[in-house]
Amino acid sequence: MSAQDPKRLHVNLFEMACVSHIVHGMWRAPGNRRHEFDRLSFWTDTATLAEEGLFDAVFLADVIGTYDKFGDSDDAALRQSVQIPTLDPLMLVPAMAAVTKNVGFGVTFSTTYEPPFAFARRMATLDHLTSGRVGWNIVTSYLRNAAQNFGYPDEVPHDDRYVKADEYLDVLYKLWEGSWDEDAIVRDVESDVYTSPDRVRRINHVGRDYSVTGPHLVHPSRQRTPVLFQASGSAAGLEFAGRHAEILFTGGRSTDEVRGNIHRAREHTIAHGRDGKDLRFVVMAGIIVARTDEEAERKYESYKKFFSVEAALVHAQAEVDLRRFRRDDTIATVLATEGKAFGNMARRFRPDQTIGSALDQISRFEDGRFFVVGSPTTVADAIERWLDVDGIDGINLRQYHSHDTARDFIEYVVPELQRRGRYRTSYTDGETLRARFFGDGNARLPLQHPASRYRDPGQLHIPPTPLSFATA
Amino acid sequence: MSAQDPKRLHVNLFEMACVSHIVHGMWRAPGNRRHEFDRLSFWTDTATLAEEGLFDAVFLADVIGTYDKFGDSDDAALRQSVQIPTLDPLMLVPAMAAVTKNVGFGVTFSTTYEPPFAFARRMATLDHLTSGRVGWNIVTSYLRNAAQNFGYPDEVPHDDRYVKADEYLDVLYKLWEGSWDEDAIVRDVESDVYTSPDRVRRINHVGRDYSVTGPHLVHPSRQRTPVLFQASGSAAGLEFAGRHAEILFTGGRSTDEVRGNIHRAREHTIAHGRDGKDLRFVVMAGIIVARTDEEAERKYESYKKFFSVEAALVHAQAEVDLRRFRRDDTIATVLATEGKAFGNMARRFRPDQTIGSALDQISRFEDGRFFVVGSPTTVADAIERWLDVDGIDGINLRQYHSHDTARDFIEYVVPELQRRGRYRTSYTDGETLRARFFGDGNARLPLQHPASRYRDPGQLHIPPTPLSFATA
Repeated sequence: MSAQDPKRLHVNLFEMACVSHIVHGMWRAPGNRRHEFDRLSFWTDTATLAEEGLFDAVFLADVIGTYDKFGDSDDAALRQSVQIPTLDPLMLVPAMAAVTKNVGFGVTFSTTYEPPFAFARRMATLDHLTSGRVGWNIVTSYLRNAAQNFGYPDEVPHDDRYVKADEYLDVLYKLWEGSWDEDAIVRDVESDVYTSPDRVRRINHVGRDYSVTGPHLVHPSRQRTPVLFQASGSAAGLEFAGRHAEILFTGGRSTDEVRGNIHRAREHTIAHGRDGKDLRFVVMAGIIVARTDEEAERKYESYKKFFSVEAALVHAQAEVDLRRFRRDDTIATVLATEGKAFGNMARRFRPDQTIGSALDQISRFEDGRFFVVGSPTTVADAIERWLDVDGIDGINLRQYHSHDTARDFIEYVVPELQRRGRYRTSYTDGETLRARFFGDGNARLPLQHPASRYRDPGQLHIPPTPLSFATA
Repeated sequence: MSAQDPKRLHVNLFEMACVSHIVHGMWRAPGNRRHEFDRLSFWTDTATLAEEGLFDAVFLADVIGTYDKFGDSDDAALRQSVQIPTLDPLMLVPAMAAVTKNVGFGVTFSTTYEPPFAFARRMATLDHLTSGRVGWNIVTSYLRNAAQNFGYPDEVPHDDRYVKADEYLDVLYKLWEGSWDEDAIVRDVESDVYTSPDRVRRINHVGRDYSVTGPHLVHPSRQRTPVLFQASGSAAGLEFAGRHAEILFTGGRSTDEVRGNIHRAREHTIAHGRDGKDLRFVVMAGIIVARTDEEAERKYESYKKFFSVEAALVHAQAEVDLRRFRRDDTIATVLATEGKAFGNMARRFRPDQTIGSALDQISRFEDGRFFVVGSPTTVADAIERWLDVDGIDGINLRQYHSHDTARDFIEYVVPELQRRGRYRTSYTDGETLRARFFGDGNARLPLQHPASRYRDPGQLHIPPTPLSFATA
């Protein structure tokens, strides 16, 4: 691809091993296979379809607790199947890998509750089994119930989670990048040596939260470190992303906001001595497409009927049931009289907004700038703006209906984007997920990435500078 | 199967995601695919083959550290590829499940280092994806390096590991058996209820080592609790098995010893209020078979050439390199002069045995009573004795060569056992792994098993009696 070529769209099929991931209530729509999320065939079908559509990856969200703020219990989450029941996403990858050759896999895992040594081995195993097709979405977990499932009385404080995560990543890098030399396995029948011991080393990590001796139990895989995804808008999150992330989930309500977020994130990357181009930006996008604008609009209307406001409130961790108030009350009034919170939903409302308009806004299930309903032309026009004006690199395609949403995208949008030179027309066989995002020959993290220092064993015992938000 | 029918053999293909699992040195044998253990195709081929042979399961061993006692380093283990490099066995199961319909999967996981909440979800996920085909080999881990990879300075003391494991199992049972009622998922579009909240509950476990709130994130799978395998000959291990295990790995050098071990284990089961028949016994077996006894003998001789004594010493955690002594020295002398240990190998030697005879014994790679070389008739005769005289129920078939060992068994032994009514002639479609071992209709743990008490939610908060070896 030359510099003059137009930017191509990266697409991840955005999924979660549950009934209701983001677009709540849609499990009731006819033909929706969400209840089959616990069957292997659902996931092999998903992966096969994503590969048919030449998607970059199937991307799996995750939580490890319940949304229990709304009504102060798990009840509404259970009733509405909001991310419970939910399976372990790591376990889906090998099954999907067994029926595909090229599509990648992004999988969410939290740095807060499980030991890094075991996770390092799990991801290295996946990278081997998929031949370099895995990415990891780094999260630090935010649900109180998640903390309580792992022996903590309440959430680990936000910034402290990132301090912990920073050390977690450090341990992983030492195992993935530093413990085994590239040429450690010699497999020499003659001299009776399988692995050359002087090319493998213990990491002897001793830090604030972790002590890990090593060696890593797994020899180098194609990518060594999986592609590092991250989503965070907080100051601590951006500082962390500046050091670690390769692909950042971003967003915004306007082009200016999106561009501002991208610019800010790039600055953090550069401050950590990395190249600004080593960071890619992906947004969650809602795309409802059909042959014509009118048909797409009708599809949207038919979907909207199923949307569950209660589930949206549960998902946002809202403590307030907006439906109990008068439509002409304002958000500010409710806040003042209730003394309760809207959870993550708060940032979507203005204080002077009426409850009625807030409820309508929720029911439209729009999400910021990256939502489009229309014909292939309408959708492709929007996507070109997202790429060129907002400056994003790709989307996580939200599922309204499984598997209609993915099928519609493949049938209507992919050919139109291909015509415009905005989408790959085939996979590069044997490509790693990192090379797919960062170009040929980039199977490994670039030299400026902090993980790369551990390729020099002399660096294994020199602690990195703490992140700048780190206290104590 | 009526009471008069002869006992049928259960067979697990014994594997580990590494080059050299038990029969060391064989990676050098021509055509052996051991070095492909890091490819998905190796495991899908293994599973397909096991299913072709109507095996009960593919059974995966595991370690989470290195064998570092021999030479006081990891060097020899690496050189000989003794269980390093090694992949995470949990990750292999979904890939193998994707290409099979009936064969089961046994997977090893340690209760000592990872949080029970995450493991509960992982296994429940596997039970869903495989539609009830999974078993868990409960281990507590014994390698010092494993402890050091998870933040401990040294191994957790043996008996304390079992106290911890007992609580670990208790947490798992509460999540698997008690947190969700069978009919919790109603999926009622009309009333807009996916899961009925009054049929799901938190477990609120607070114990010595674990605090876990719940609810379990996964709805009931076909088996709920995976089939529980265990291997242990120690007093604490047997007491633990008496409460928990459904399938126990046992062994012995003579019929009397094997029968004694089986009898003792059954007594422990009965002491825990369970039925003695609720425990099955499996031994690790080495079978080298060919068309004739002579041909099998030649195959054995050809394998023996590759066997690595050094790797066997590494695997046994021997601190002493026997090869450095005179062949006519005795084991007792070496022990006295060196003040070092033979590790797990010690119990295989008599004090008055010469070093020469000990080395010969190791090089024969025989392992107790369950080793046979011969024609289909010779092997089937041996197996009938194992079933009827020793009283075992099944074998873990050791791999000498991948996949020749499994193929030979399928080609030569299976038809002969079938002729004798000692082996299934087809799978019962849709059978769970538990039903395969315990008969039709037994997808779940029996009522007398301690896990079953949690099916009554009133029992969730009553702690079980400590195991009788428990101190403090």
